[in-house]
Amino acid sequence: MDLKNAIHECWSKIDEGHVATYIPALANVNPYQLGVCLFDVTNDHKEQAGASQVRFAVESVSKVISLLYAIDQLGLEAVSSQVGTRQTGFPFDTILNMEITGESQPLNPFVNSGAILISSLIEEQDGQSPFDQILDFSRKICNDPGITLDQEIYLSELETGDRNRSLAYYLKARGTLNNDVTTSLDTYFRQCSMMVTCESLANLGAVLANDGIAPWNSERLISSQAATYTKSVMMTTGLYTESGTYSVQIGVPTKSGVGGGLVAAAPSHCGIGIFSPALNPVGNSVAGLALLEMISRELKLDIFKY
Amino acid sequence: MDLKNAIHECWSKIDEGHVATYIPALANVNPYQLGVCLFDVTNDHKEQAGASQVRFAVESVSKVISLLYAIDQLGLEAVSSQVGTRQTGFPFDTILNMEITGESQPLNPFVNSGAILISSLIEEQDGQSPFDQILDFSRKICNDPGITLDQEIYLSELETGDRNRSLAYYLKARGTLNNDVTTSLDTYFRQCSMMVTCESLANLGAVLANDGIAPWNSERLISSQAATYTKSVMMTTGLYTESGTYSVQIGVPTKSGVGGGLVAAAPSHCGIGIFSPALNPVGNSVAGLALLEMISRELKLDIFKY
Amino acid sequence: MDLKNAIHECWSKIDEGHVATYIPALANVNPYQLGVCLFDVTNDHKEQAGASQVRFAVESVSKVISLLYAIDQLGLEAVSSQVGTRQTGFPFDTILNMEITGESQPLNPFVNSGAILISSLIEEQDGQSPFDQILDFSRKICNDPGITLDQEIYLSELETGDRNRSLAYYLKARGTLNNDVTTSLDTYFRQCSMMVTCESLANLGAVLANDGIAPWNSERLISSQAATYTKSVMMTTGLYTESGTYSVQIGVPTKSGVGGGLVAAAPSHCGIGIFSPALNPVGNSVAGLALLEMISRELKLDIFKY
Amino acid sequence: MDLKNAIHECWSKIDEGHVATYIPALANVNPYQLGVCLFDVTNDHKEQAGASQVRFAVESVSKVISLLYAIDQLGLEAVSSQVGTRQTGFPFDTILNMEITGESQPLNPFVNSGAILISSLIEEQDGQSPFDQILDFSRKICNDPGITLDQEIYLSELETGDRNRSLAYYLKARGTLNNDVTTSLDTYFRQCSMMVTCESLANLGAVLANDGIAPWNSERLISSQAATYTKSVMMTTGLYTESGTYSVQIGVPTKSGVGGGLVAAAPSHCGIGIFSPALNPVGNSVAGLALLEMISRELKLDIFKY
Repeated sequence: MDLKNAIHECWSKIDEGHVATYIPALANVNPYQLGVCLFDVTNDHKEQAGASQVRFAVESVSKVISLLYAIDQLGLEAVSSQVGTRQTGFPFDTILNMEITGESQPLNPFVNSGAILISSLIEEQDGQSPFDQILDFSRKICNDPGITLDQEIYLSELETGDRNRSLAYYLKARGTLNNDVTTSLDTYFRQCSMMVTCESLANLGAVLANDGIAPWNSERLISSQAATYTKSVMMTTGLYTESGTYSVQIGVPTKSGVGGGLVAAAPSHCGIGIFSPALNPVGNSVAGLALLEMISRELKLDIFKY
Repeated sequence: MDLKNAIHECWSKIDEGHVATYIPALANVNPYQLGVCLFDVTNDHKEQAGASQVRFAVESVSKVISLLYAIDQLGLEAVSSQVGTRQTGFPFDTILNMEITGESQPLNPFVNSGAILISSLIEEQDGQSPFDQILDFSRKICNDPGITLDQEIYLSELETGDRNRSLAYYLKARGTLNNDVTTSLDTYFRQCSMMVTCESLANLGAVLANDGIAPWNSERLISSQAATYTKSVMMTTGLYTESGTYSVQIGVPTKSGVGGGLVAAAPSHCGIGIFSPALNPVGNSVAGLALLEMISRELKLDIFKY
Repeated sequence: MDLKNAIHECWSKIDEGHVATYIPALANVNPYQLGVCLFDVTNDHKEQAGASQVRFAVESVSKVISLLYAIDQLGLEAVSSQVGTRQTGFPFDTILNMEITGESQPLNPFVNSGAILISSLIEEQDGQSPFDQILDFSRKICNDPGITLDQEIYLSELETGDRNRSLAYYLKARGTLNNDVTTSLDTYFRQCSMMVTCESLANLGAVLANDGIAPWNSERLISSQAATYTKSVMMTTGLYTESGTYSVQIGVPTKSGVGGGLVAAAPSHCGIGIFSPALNPVGNSVAGLALLEMISRELKLDIFKY
Repeated sequence: MDLKNAIHECWSKIDEGHVATYIPALANVNPYQLGVCLFDVTNDHKEQAGASQVRFAVESVSKVISLLYAIDQLGLEAVSSQVGTRQTGFPFDTILNMEITGESQPLNPFVNSGAILISSLIEEQDGQSPFDQILDFSRKICNDPGITLDQEIYLSELETGDRNRSLAYYLKARGTLNNDVTTSLDTYFRQCSMMVTCESLANLGAVLANDGIAPWNSERLISSQAATYTKSVMMTTGLYTESGTYSVQIGVPTKSGVGGGLVAAAPSHCGIGIFSPALNPVGNSVAGLALLEMISRELKLDIFKY
């Protein structure tokens, strides 16, 4: 499809959003950016348009990567027995459900409590810190050796991370998080601060879409089961409280981040990476979602329809 | 696939569940029943096995039918603007989220509050009561003129319906439900008391799978949009608090009822109706879900994988 | 003390409030009214000032009366075993706590759910309806044969009572409310619609202050235990979510109603009835509470200080 | 009254409780202890019986002391504007209400979040740490120079303090707690670890009962306003979720701690210190409350009755 034209049509949506302000480093990003990269796994074809090579903070999209890495290291059973696959009905940083139901498991791996728990599961290995392992894995699954940690973003995360500290100590108090809280949080803050591009995320999406096999070299990077599990969880909980809305409107498993990134994986079709930093009140990229909806419609990606 | 053999393999699962007891009429059902009907819409082929012609109470599976009928009558916009597409994170009869968030909309059409609201939207027409319209529509979309209301089930629903009355008056007090409460509840109690078979539900699922067109006579019964919307909502919220779990394990849009019924719709593949009245603690058919998982795996129906 | 002067000083507070609007009959009341009656039980002296003889809707102040009558009829044990003595931390019509904790008992007799349950406990007796018994008891304990039901208020209560219906059916569904819901609600709506004066409430307060004995004729109207219990519950939960605030500022057991009434009982000192219909956002009479605070200070009534 | 005999009568109640187990240092305490000290401020008479000189961990009773000290240092207005006077309806360590209502203030100074906030308000002064100031103030208001920190208890508090850390970071994230989290928590953990006796607490209670003036030397230690405010808050929220129950049964402002201590202050009558480490499920001393109820009845201390 004509991605350039699609960007053109969605451009005005940018004005409906605002860049994330809770972190100074994000607040300074120019909102007027929109980029996309689409990796068609059926014919190994990649195309891109707009700000597709601009680096931006991966933020919550990293939750997909750390989840995949944790499954890779510990097995799906070990991971899925410690974190649920339910929506919370509340914002991403809430602990309401766990308080109310008395459960000690985070409801899913994409709310902050769940993501922090996932990161805590990764142990130091051969002298490599949990984050360094996640960074290596990110470079591999995104096919992007250029991914690095942005020091300014990381310091901002540290500075504004009290809510996440509260969640982590809550999990610790409940006996759910068993590793060191400070290390686990540091891993989490660091993974959020990795800088990616639309192309990195399109590659990540392509691996998910292609049943776990990297389409660029036919290497299996994650198990088929891990890929299916993750796509399902992305569909149910990937877009915060709007997951249900976009499950209806777009119908493609997607995960967003407050850096303005989106990764989508249309099973057996394509991986998509999108970047546009102006967010709606819930924290999803406004122009990005508009663009993704257009692509889904045009390429018939809606898994509930086709 | 060999449905008979599949039933044989899942039979022992029955012992892990219990028939619903909150309604005397349901408590008396023989738990040792398992039936299935599969309608393949790609080659217009239908097969069945086990108790596929036994009539059972449709219960919450009727929420799919009333939702489709409401969309048919009022348009998708009117319906989706009054009820959300979010999971609640809580059991089906809760009003916690609405109380906590201060929202006045039910979170989705498959929790009781949402379903009661949907039923309240249907107005008397040409002297036909809302329920009679739903009954007619059920017979048409299930291709089953034999669907009737079971008086005993209906009286049981009336007798045990105080929680639903509480929900309905809550919606009324919030200004969300604008029609008469007693009539709306009566419609709801009646629709739950319709008696269907696996074949009825397979037909219903086939219409959903076939983009809204009845595969048995190529008539469009619901809009393409309505079919897609409903499948998406079924995936996210169709199996109570286990929706996420089965989204991962089965990957096919499904709705359950405490009568032991399941309707599933694999887009562009098939509709499936299943009946087995022994339920797990959440209220889903134990053997039914095991059978559905087996079918999904065998026929490669998982929409997150294929 | 000079009550006339006190009214003068508190008059301007009226402008900070608004009459209740949820019921048309209350919305039409002239906000510029302030009356008080003080019954000193140590020397059997009663004085009054301002609109002390104006009749107004008793509303939630009736919860004190029905509680006392229920204890009188069933015994304190039977009543206190069915309703708690805890604050909810939430507004008066919430069911959040019960939903969250899974408890089936209302948290206290002054939230609506608790008050409806209390009213439901009163059975028809010798052909006299529960309400007629409450009305008789009100006339006796308020020493006011002029108390009658206002038909317009009652009809308004009926019309706007959906939240209360929701609460009642919720209690019924939980097995807490065992009598007929419609009758119980009707009793409740009717008791809220009784018309009282400041003097009626001062008499009621005097009985409570005087350990259960009517100071006007030395007759014991309620048990000592009932009087103490009720004063304690008034202190903890009598002023909605502001109970704690006024426990600190006034220090006298008090119950308010959205009709603008207040009844206060300073143990072994005096009963006080106040009326001023302009309410603060929580539902308490603004000028009324200011006046009560002034009286408490002047007459040294604060039970936490003296 | 005959305190020795009262202890004898309440002794068997010990078997109904269990010592706190969440901290090893508390779990090792011998449950079979019951002591009391009563300071009658009307005639400056003090009597004691049983384990009245045994030192035990002050735990949550320290919340009374830090509250009084914070008011002393910052003024009542500054303190009461930052923390409420409402019950939560939930256990002491919950953050449910704040999450649900969106409020950023702890509901009262005796839930953990409120107490941590209070401790955070105390600033280092003349080189003296917040805790050292609280310790000095404790020795003065308890008239007990022997109060010291128990190192083992303190280390246990540190080790098991994750829930409190979660609460503190939550308050920090909400912008409510503005000082250093680690210091604030350390102050809190230390103040809980002070070792007191029944006599210390009777003296504390006597100051509260005596309008803020130490009855042993007629020195004003706290303002009259602070004394009244604190007694009121003790009555409403001093005994966790049982505050309402004991407001009814005992009718004397009381604060408990999981070390088994109780401080009670009957306005213008007496201060009472009690120690018995076996707790009921809510965390209140079983035999201690039985003894206090007996004393209240015998000495006619119930402020709602007399």
